Amino acid sequence: MPPIDQKASNTPNTGAGPHLLSQQSRQATSSAIRDLLVHARRPGVISLAGGLPSTELFPTTSLVAAASTILSQPQNLQYGLTEGEMRLREIVADIHTTDDQLPITPDDVQIVSGSQQALDLIARVTLDPGDEVVVGDSEYLGAIGAFRGAGGRLVPIPIDSHGLDVDTLAGQLRRGLRPKLCYLIPEFHNPTGESITAERLSRLAILSDRYAFLIVEDNPYGALRFDGEPVRTMASMTDNVVRCRTISKTIAPGLRVAWMIGPGWLLDAVRVAKQSVDLHTPTVTQHLAATLLGNTDAHQSHMSRLASHYMDRRDSLMGALRDHMPEGRFASPAGGMFLWLSLPESVDTNRLLPLALDRGVAFVPGSAFAVSGTARHSMRLSYSTATPSELREAVERLAAALTDWADGPGVSSPP
Amino acid sequence: MPPIDQKASNTPNTGAGPHLLSQQSRQATSSAIRDLLVHARRPGVISLAGGLPSTELFPTTSLVAAASTILSQPQNLQYGLTEGEMRLREIVADIHTTDDQLPITPDDVQIVSGSQQALDLIARVTLDPGDEVVVGDSEYLGAIGAFRGAGGRLVPIPIDSHGLDVDTLAGQLRRGLRPKLCYLIPEFHNPTGESITAERLSRLAILSDRYAFLIVEDNPYGALRFDGEPVRTMASMTDNVVRCRTISKTIAPGLRVAWMIGPGWLLDAVRVAKQSVDLHTPTVTQHLAATLLGNTDAHQSHMSRLASHYMDRRDSLMGALRDHMPEGRFASPAGGMFLWLSLPESVDTNRLLPLALDRGVAFVPGSAFAVSGTARHSMRLSYSTATPSELREAVERLAAALTDWADGPGVSSPP
Repeated sequence: MPPIDQKASNTPNTGAGPHLLSQQSRQATSSAIRDLLVHARRPGVISLAGGLPSTELFPTTSLVAAASTILSQPQNLQYGLTEGEMRLREIVADIHTTDDQLPITPDDVQIVSGSQQALDLIARVTLDPGDEVVVGDSEYLGAIGAFRGAGGRLVPIPIDSHGLDVDTLAGQLRRGLRPKLCYLIPEFHNPTGESITAERLSRLAILSDRYAFLIVEDNPYGALRFDGEPVRTMASMTDNVVRCRTISKTIAPGLRVAWMIGPGWLLDAVRVAKQSVDLHTPTVTQHLAATLLGNTDAHQSHMSRLASHYMDRRDSLMGALRDHMPEGRFASPAGGMFLWLSLPESVDTNRLLPLALDRGVAFVPGSAFAVSGTARHSMRLSYSTATPSELREAVERLAAALTDWADGPGVSSPP
Repeated sequence: MPPIDQKASNTPNTGAGPHLLSQQSRQATSSAIRDLLVHARRPGVISLAGGLPSTELFPTTSLVAAASTILSQPQNLQYGLTEGEMRLREIVADIHTTDDQLPITPDDVQIVSGSQQALDLIARVTLDPGDEVVVGDSEYLGAIGAFRGAGGRLVPIPIDSHGLDVDTLAGQLRRGLRPKLCYLIPEFHNPTGESITAERLSRLAILSDRYAFLIVEDNPYGALRFDGEPVRTMASMTDNVVRCRTISKTIAPGLRVAWMIGPGWLLDAVRVAKQSVDLHTPTVTQHLAATLLGNTDAHQSHMSRLASHYMDRRDSLMGALRDHMPEGRFASPAGGMFLWLSLPESVDTNRLLPLALDRGVAFVPGSAFAVSGTARHSMRLSYSTATPSELREAVERLAAALTDWADGPGVSSPP
């Protein structure tokens, strides 16, 4: 037997290394928010930068009780169906049939490991490299990451106080844009806090039919509404929609349970993809979610507590902003966790951030969410985890940082 | 404002549909095993087709106790780190440092949602379309799906009674093959049941260094050994290896907890990819795994029970095969869940399967796992879920089906 490498002596002896990474992976970088949160965790910093739900609202007692039943039944610990546990899909179908007044069966539901996985799977089964995806400008970073990860080309459309600017989209479609997907957070958009109007939704539905694209309706915050009327799902207007819903903001994100409701041709492809991705979402967390969602009365009381908790904090933040930062403009978020604050155009929030961290407060600069625009004088403030008094203190610190700014760099230079 | 679709009247009004699927998704099909298991679930059928661990061995009592502590601490329910919970990574690092006598830190560990996700993430961050991946011929279907899903081109290498045929691989490398990955199940290979020899491992390590490819060492079954000495990890021989380990076969698959240990350049890319894929593995299931793995004495007793349980079943299956199917050839599996049975070359196990189902027994035909070969007269039998008496009954039924075969189709025709 000859030495195995006799003829290969001219091959460089390097071993495996970064040259084995795919082109995509060599270009990928960590998210700006992730890198930023390292600084936001400095002792003494009040962080309005995160997007975490409030830990104190997690229904631990209900979960402990549910787990004791679920884990004592060994069949709940076996490999499960790729589409998700029937018990959870039945409960989800019932909830949507009632809430949306649109009949849904368990077959219409695909359980996923958080909404992020829904976005990744949708991107993976629809996008070929270069396919176009309509997103807001600014937009949720996780969606941007999922669409770009599948090779999608982002087409940013402005978001104004009525939500995604459907007129601008219609114009681009008339001029030849043919997207495969249109991503939409209909209520309390992350990061802008805006909700889309019913009139725009119905026009978007008509466009989706005419131009044959799929609307990805991602609504993680809709259940956290404290003012006004819910926005109806686009599924009441068109079949060209896949709905993504999650328990991450209402029960607990650490369970990583979410679901998709969409057309059969899409869910069939998603199920095949999910077999390769992770076989199925954990059965145990699905059963925990099913028990809590299925206990309707207790869940509704829990949701009322949540809404009242977050409304108090929104009010504290808005009050402090009115008192201490009269130069800031913002819409009053009717739900969700985020307030989008716009400062005078002379302020560059990227460059304000280090000053704010020095003063002991963290936020996310608007540019972190920008697709084509810069959102340079805006920032996202989260009121979900700080207490009312921390929120007031945070705004005072932010106002002080703004004074530091006026004393220092002054007028911003182009990026 | 003009009608939004005035200029688009020549666009066909089709709405969203299957034409929006990516090329990959239009080609993808469900796995043969998945389709087959529908028939294996018919009432009265004894299924040796599945790959499920035995439900009766799941440590329900330990899990209930662990959950009650874990779920009562709300911080365990919050969003977590993409790399995994520190507590679990510490325990995993300790286990590997002790068992493999190679120092490992928590930073070397990435927690994933089952080994399937490890394979998918590795494929995703390394493979560009057309990149070559060495696999066994026959091979685990989940690995084939993950590598093909990322556009990988499979290069099948035969597996014999000493494991992957490294001589054949060396020859192909000398003739110019430059794979990015080499997939390896070192112990109790699925489906062939074979383990690789130490001599082949050390030659494979040299090849990986010379030809700069990464070895994906996937070892879900190694902990279920009842005879002989463990195979050492390739990490003791080369840095060109990523180890994939799981609790699915030892604690419970429904938790979907597994981990990867590999070089920093790979784990860095995997962490960025996992942020887009699902943010992180559920915190709750990670803490359950940590509690059970961290309770060393109880876990070792549990593992002894498992080994003894599966050994009894292997012995029952082998005894019945010797008694009732003397024409079958098989190696005695020293662990794991599978026995690879080869029948006379005249038998086509694809065509035997319907006869076997009629007799009330299910198996997976070898062709389901074939990459370039056919494995046409082989089948995979699992002894993990049937009782000893069911295993004997199953083999009697299989022998009867073989008699039906001899009476019926007889000599097989080419596929």
